[in-house]
Amino acid sequence: MYEKQLLLIPGPTMIPPRVLRAMSVPPMGHRSQKFSQVVKEVSENLKKVFQTKNDVYILTASGTGAMEAAVTNFVNPGDKVLVLVNGKFGDRFAKINKRYGVEVIRKDFELGKPADPKIVKEILLEDKGQEIKAVFVQQNETSTGILNNIKAIKEAMADHPALLIVDSISGMAVANFPVDEWGADVVVAGSQKAFMLPPGLAFISVSEKAWKVNETCKNYNFYFDLQAARKNLTKDTTPFTPATALILGLKESLNIILNEGLENIYKKQEKFKEMVREAVKALCLELLVKDEKSASPAITAIKVPDNIQWKDLNNILLNDFNVQIAGGQDDLKGKIFRIGHIGYVQDMDLLTAVAALEMALYKLGFIKELGIGVKACQQVILKHKEEA
Amino acid sequence: MYEKQLLLIPGPTMIPPRVLRAMSVPPMGHRSQKFSQVVKEVSENLKKVFQTKNDVYILTASGTGAMEAAVTNFVNPGDKVLVLVNGKFGDRFAKINKRYGVEVIRKDFELGKPADPKIVKEILLEDKGQEIKAVFVQQNETSTGILNNIKAIKEAMADHPALLIVDSISGMAVANFPVDEWGADVVVAGSQKAFMLPPGLAFISVSEKAWKVNETCKNYNFYFDLQAARKNLTKDTTPFTPATALILGLKESLNIILNEGLENIYKKQEKFKEMVREAVKALCLELLVKDEKSASPAITAIKVPDNIQWKDLNNILLNDFNVQIAGGQDDLKGKIFRIGHIGYVQDMDLLTAVAALEMALYKLGFIKELGIGVKACQQVILKHKEEA
Repeated sequence: MYEKQLLLIPGPTMIPPRVLRAMSVPPMGHRSQKFSQVVKEVSENLKKVFQTKNDVYILTASGTGAMEAAVTNFVNPGDKVLVLVNGKFGDRFAKINKRYGVEVIRKDFELGKPADPKIVKEILLEDKGQEIKAVFVQQNETSTGILNNIKAIKEAMADHPALLIVDSISGMAVANFPVDEWGADVVVAGSQKAFMLPPGLAFISVSEKAWKVNETCKNYNFYFDLQAARKNLTKDTTPFTPATALILGLKESLNIILNEGLENIYKKQEKFKEMVREAVKALCLELLVKDEKSASPAITAIKVPDNIQWKDLNNILLNDFNVQIAGGQDDLKGKIFRIGHIGYVQDMDLLTAVAALEMALYKLGFIKELGIGVKACQQVILKHKEEA
Repeated sequence: MYEKQLLLIPGPTMIPPRVLRAMSVPPMGHRSQKFSQVVKEVSENLKKVFQTKNDVYILTASGTGAMEAAVTNFVNPGDKVLVLVNGKFGDRFAKINKRYGVEVIRKDFELGKPADPKIVKEILLEDKGQEIKAVFVQQNETSTGILNNIKAIKEAMADHPALLIVDSISGMAVANFPVDEWGADVVVAGSQKAFMLPPGLAFISVSEKAWKVNETCKNYNFYFDLQAARKNLTKDTTPFTPATALILGLKESLNIILNEGLENIYKKQEKFKEMVREAVKALCLELLVKDEKSASPAITAIKVPDNIQWKDLNNILLNDFNVQIAGGQDDLKGKIFRIGHIGYVQDMDLLTAVAALEMALYKLGFIKELGIGVKACQQVILKHKEEA
């Protein structure tokens, strides 16, 4: 059972055998020349995925560690920041800032709605004294399946000098994000999403503008001190012992990503989103995010129907069909469920998940007929084959 | 060449195939019941290795991250602490404290000498106002190969209320350290040493006394917030996505460690230390740590002879014999080299390393005769076989 579980949560995601093999080698000294060559190669390739000329630093931590680095290296206690919140991870940015005594202007958006650039514009226009030092936002909010429009948010910031700090942990290499072109100053990503690796690494890019701000920063953290990361990367190394095995896996997964090509990946992810959304509609379930453009290509959130318990649905999916999807988090527990479609996923995986979901809904009496969701998936698959 | 490199640096250390295989499996959801069972098992087994009844928390970070957690969760800015320094990692504890505005009383000990409990006693006796909130020390100082006497340091602290905070990153499961019996309040360990795993996980135990101090603490870090770790461990989980693959490996390596038995491991490590030290003496090289009792059973530091360059020695070891040992760090660069003997090492590995070292020294003209160091190793091996 366990070995063939279809894991469709929004991370950790499934891992290609090539990547597993790459990690499963005798260890290397982290200060050896051979390992430095690996650090050099992956750092260059990360820049390609981030579409940036700036350094991308590798942190041995979960994504939250890199979110903390994105706060403490660029904001001082007493500073004012704007945090856009579409769900749990926006809330986390607010919490981290508060932890460090940063004054948070928090803007929550309606459940299932993206961050509104107009509101960002209004808030920044009202900030005559330019006291807001940074705008924090998720590119992809994992908890609700929202894809924010980072380009539009940056445009809405106009001439305001605040840094744009983006959590793209579940967005990078899923949805297009040309970091330099769109002008994002600090961007965070994580290994266990589209990078098809186990959790344990996070990546962070820093613009020249952000480095200037960093110079005036108290830089509380020791472990997450990006100045140390910057200094060490000039020697193709890291300040502290990195998760060497994961970095060896990263080398392989970056090759997979760049060989497939970012444009092809973005297209594939749009197809996955379409497959799941069309199936959901066909099954008369309700999508949390109505607007197609704001719906995440990484994860689809679906409302739990009134007469069904998430727990029952999940038990059938897990026990009968060995399919693992995710429930809601915090306030959304029991109210939504989420199908992840990030990374090492293919059409037939999602078709399988939809088929399992159908059977579970059938067993629970929510639908009376089988095959409807699967058919919707099939139609999307064939449509995209024709277009290709 | 690469696959059969003999890696004898003080971490990352070599990894048993069983552990590599345990990590090399399809990923598990980190909030799944199955993964919680793993977290529960490894947490219980970590307590056995730490010889503590207190929780041991798993952090997804290098050891330095856990060192930072050991500062920020128990010390406030403006507090006074005593930091005992035998090398680079003692210095790091001082740096982390200073980063957070903690007033550091720094006591450096002579190169190659252990922390002197008498001096700890004197300093704490002079602290009439009991202003010193914590004493920081390495059990095993990786940079110089010193094993500090934690038991004696705790005894020297007598009735002083300061916390005893110990970095046992390269000491845990190498030298005996009954955390509860010796009264250490906060103890840090890391995956890439005796736990025979790649880098990326750190472990930290917290005493009841330390938790009481924690209540009065500002608890700056978000990612390293041990209150969150504590709360989550009651549900057999972690606050943030953990390095799942490494934790699956940890499950296996803890089984290996506990099956071998801590007492047997400590004995084996003492033998390794004896093998290397006797070989070094036989080769007329100079040990950095003269006192046998203060010499680390994890790593042996050796002075680079006057007429030899470390770089030349290292090149021969690496290129001719595929043996990787470590040089000195920071101020000790070029002045010492270090042979690690932690974790997945056996007698014959060290014998091989000594044989390679001999050949390198012979090539460099430092010795005129071969076999002397190897013979010393052989004698130690056979002596221990007889005693067993």
